[in-house]
Amino acid sequence: MDEQRARRPGGRSARVGAQVHQAVTELISERGYGNFTIGEVAARAGVADSSIYRRWGDLEALLCDVALNRLNSRSPMPDTGSLDGDLRTYASQVAREITGPEGPAVLHLAVALANAGERGVQARDALRTERVRQLQSMLDRAHERGESAPDALTVLDYVLAPMYSRVLFGMGPLTPEYVDGLVDRLP
Amino acid sequence: MDEQRARRPGGRSARVGAQVHQAVTELISERGYGNFTIGEVAARAGVADSSIYRRWGDLEALLCDVALNRLNSRSPMPDTGSLDGDLRTYASQVAREITGPEGPAVLHLAVALANAGERGVQARDALRTERVRQLQSMLDRAHERGESAPDALTVLDYVLAPMYSRVLFGMGPLTPEYVDGLVDRLP
Repeated sequence: MDEQRARRPGGRSARVGAQVHQAVTELISERGYGNFTIGEVAARAGVADSSIYRRWGDLEALLCDVALNRLNSRSPMPDTGSLDGDLRTYASQVAREITGPEGPAVLHLAVALANAGERGVQARDALRTERVRQLQSMLDRAHERGESAPDALTVLDYVLAPMYSRVLFGMGPLTPEYVDGLVDRLP
Repeated sequence: MDEQRARRPGGRSARVGAQVHQAVTELISERGYGNFTIGEVAARAGVADSSIYRRWGDLEALLCDVALNRLNSRSPMPDTGSLDGDLRTYASQVAREITGPEGPAVLHLAVALANAGERGVQARDALRTERVRQLQSMLDRAHERGESAPDALTVLDYVLAPMYSRVLFGMGPLTPEYVDGLVDRLP
């Protein structure tokens, strides 16, 4: 009995979690952040409303969980052997992510979290901290190889911020030339 | 009779418009974008729900109108006589706007519009087009004086995007040193 009820990978709990996360991601893409209810998530995921309330408590907590989960499951930071190679690969990964079918939704979610109360702000800060930490590990490897490297905030300002802004404000595609140009401009 | 019913500046229609816009701005600041109803806007503004429905149709259209109105009423672009002076003044104006009490709300609104259907996307595009147009007029004046000037998209990428991203992701204050540093880095 205890064994059956335990949460284990591949078990019922993990399956429900994956279905609910998928439903949330789809609904964000289709309707925009927050324009749906727990009941609609449940119907889409094929689970009972009560399963969602029991596990996540409310929609806000569920949205935070989805945001964090998506960030943590992202492709690992590149390790090409040179900072230049790492930065170009990383920049093009991010460009693909945020312009992909679910990319704008994740970006909007991160932004919308800041308006979703204290818990939302915490989730947004966790998202940002994780992204900066990943970036810093890449820059640390460059330092260990004896390469000079910009700091993480400089990479954010020069490479990530322009891409984020262009996507958020609907400013055209992020072409490979554009993305490479951002890396070229790093001091 | 016709005279009394005409919309004129300072008339009843303008007064209701100003009260409703103020109510929306306050509610966005307090609760975040979209976390309120037409009824709550009406109560805050001291007008009848039906006045809002008749004039704007729905909450989405009202939010778009507020966003456009705020952009259009912004302080004029600086004209200091040199591009360097104009850019520094402009950058510090934008920094003040987006970190002021209502700044994050306006920024979030612009972002949220993209998730608010076709009309929202049109309003967001209008916001962006207006901002680029203002910027371009400043750069054109520099060209007319014989100064070399970056293009508007370069100013967006180097100066505006980092400030937007830092505010959106909750990354610390925009100090005068930071803002001036962004202008210094322009190619």
